Amino acid sequence: MNSSRLDGQVRIVGTGLLGTSAALGLRALGVDVVLHDASPTALELAIDYGAGRRASADDAPALILVAVPPDRTAEVVAAELEAFPDALVTDVASVKAAPLAALQEAGVDTSRYLGGHPLAGREKGGPIAARADLFLGRPWVITPQPATTTRQLAVLEDLVLDLGAVPVLLDPEEHDLGVALVSHVPQVVSSLLAARLIDGAESALGLTGQGLRDTTRIAASDPELWIQILGANAQAVAGILSAFRDDLSALIEALEHPEASGARRAIAGALAAGNAGVARLPGKHGRDRVFTTLVIMVEDRPGQLARLLHEIGELDVNMEDLRLEHSPGAEFGLAEVQVLPEAAAGLAAALEERGWRIAEQRR
Amino acid sequence: MNSSRLDGQVRIVGTGLLGTSAALGLRALGVDVVLHDASPTALELAIDYGAGRRASADDAPALILVAVPPDRTAEVVAAELEAFPDALVTDVASVKAAPLAALQEAGVDTSRYLGGHPLAGREKGGPIAARADLFLGRPWVITPQPATTTRQLAVLEDLVLDLGAVPVLLDPEEHDLGVALVSHVPQVVSSLLAARLIDGAESALGLTGQGLRDTTRIAASDPELWIQILGANAQAVAGILSAFRDDLSALIEALEHPEASGARRAIAGALAAGNAGVARLPGKHGRDRVFTTLVIMVEDRPGQLARLLHEIGELDVNMEDLRLEHSPGAEFGLAEVQVLPEAAAGLAAALEERGWRIAEQRR
Repeated sequence: MNSSRLDGQVRIVGTGLLGTSAALGLRALGVDVVLHDASPTALELAIDYGAGRRASADDAPALILVAVPPDRTAEVVAAELEAFPDALVTDVASVKAAPLAALQEAGVDTSRYLGGHPLAGREKGGPIAARADLFLGRPWVITPQPATTTRQLAVLEDLVLDLGAVPVLLDPEEHDLGVALVSHVPQVVSSLLAARLIDGAESALGLTGQGLRDTTRIAASDPELWIQILGANAQAVAGILSAFRDDLSALIEALEHPEASGARRAIAGALAAGNAGVARLPGKHGRDRVFTTLVIMVEDRPGQLARLLHEIGELDVNMEDLRLEHSPGAEFGLAEVQVLPEAAAGLAAALEERGWRIAEQRR
Repeated sequence: MNSSRLDGQVRIVGTGLLGTSAALGLRALGVDVVLHDASPTALELAIDYGAGRRASADDAPALILVAVPPDRTAEVVAAELEAFPDALVTDVASVKAAPLAALQEAGVDTSRYLGGHPLAGREKGGPIAARADLFLGRPWVITPQPATTTRQLAVLEDLVLDLGAVPVLLDPEEHDLGVALVSHVPQVVSSLLAARLIDGAESALGLTGQGLRDTTRIAASDPELWIQILGANAQAVAGILSAFRDDLSALIEALEHPEASGARRAIAGALAAGNAGVARLPGKHGRDRVFTTLVIMVEDRPGQLARLLHEIGELDVNMEDLRLEHSPGAEFGLAEVQVLPEAAAGLAAALEERGWRIAEQRR
């Protein structure tokens, strides 16, 4: 068993998905974890799962992790700071400026509060969905205040590293603007786009391709959670959406008068700006995206895709990414395999030699 | 060798990706294909690839496929109708009302013109990217006019079936509204969303997750082609974008005044509408999406994903969909495997027994 980097007891308040997952991860390292939740059922479930023991009057936690919904974070952090005057208190809320401001406005001394936000998968599911390895390899943002000490920072970093996550230091406003851009605005845009489908003709939906599926996938997200997130980061999200709307209005104007002077240029500009924006996304391992895609036809029955990937493995080629596409009613699918450009031609040739049909090779 | 359903010669005008792919598919069935392209280089390349022979004065095509860019389609169709008074003329343009209207406005007799639009992958690449099986399993929309005869329809359906595609009959306006909704509007929205990233902080982009990647993937599309498509379907696209903008403005208003009466309800409504819209997307084989997702940890080295999928195949479970997610710098990835709900629990248990770590199971 690996041992923990942390000294002392950890108290976890809120035994939902994130709190219970953190508790399970720390228990696996032998940390003394005490649990509290406003819901007796959720608390007992987490204890049954082995996530820690029930909080008691004798507890003396060195670190407290507040893992409650975003709209309750500030009040619970304040209560914990008061109840445990020697503990460092952190949280997992997906917005960071609002809870800090709420604490300061309430006159709470925040010198022992250090905000955090693990970017760990879907933030729903409750204790039943909890996993000790939920945070493995994920960024965990830590938002120091000017008065945060290096010792406090080290304690929270130890927690993050214990759970296998990657600490990322940002100030609260920088964090909130960042997640507005890369998470909250895409959620809103995807939801609004998907909402257009409600009145779409059945015949139109029959023409659905991978592009629409990709752009609307996150529109299936949990509204309950997202109301809180958007409400708590409303200004940052509204600011980016307003800029988006300005671009959209210019494009609508151009489309409504396509023969007007400058209309084509406005459309071209919007498309080129999209190219430039997506090119900024970090690739795997922090590299830029420079992969070649092979589109390979795969029969739609058990084992065929596995056979393909097994053979790619035999050829000692590492896939950088893989997607499947199905056509309605078709008896096969298309596997889009991304590989390093220098490996693409050899792989395509070797696969064709083994009888696979390459439908397309691009970039 | 399979034989063609078609009688007589097929003339293909425009030897880009679509024209050359159709030509290769027909040649594989033994059809007499004659080729023409305004570019001698593109024409010679297609002939070198075995896509057919050079058009000559003796040609007597029964069917002519016009596969030129959308903004040249009407003029080329008109020229072909005049040059070959016995042939049925079709096209592949991704908008259908505008070319027909342009022909009618020019006084062309369109009784031998029958529009078409294959929804086949990326519409770029030129003859080098052509594949005989490009259209396999894809919808190919046919847009009859009121005077179209069943015999004309049968000829075009034979072409579509010869190429392995699925004929879908829609009228031109219905087609254009449909592709505006499921293809053109998502393209615009994705481009505008990605454009917001241009000014994003490096630290923000470091927090990028799968949601942003999915919503912006098609923002990497070719601007040249999309200017033409959007220009030719401008009214339909602008109409849907205007409705999108109305929803967006209501949401921005709610976010700018989150404590105002009705603000939370407006945000909740937008998110719930997104849920309802995405639920309308057709699933694989036309079923609704009712899959369970298992998120499985996979080491990031050659062969590991293949081993996983091989074992899933051994367990005789068919994957409905599969996605990979990588964390920057991590030594493993997450494989999201969708299976039928009734297969999920057994598969999860069997995989864990074989040593795989299931990070999450949802829906």
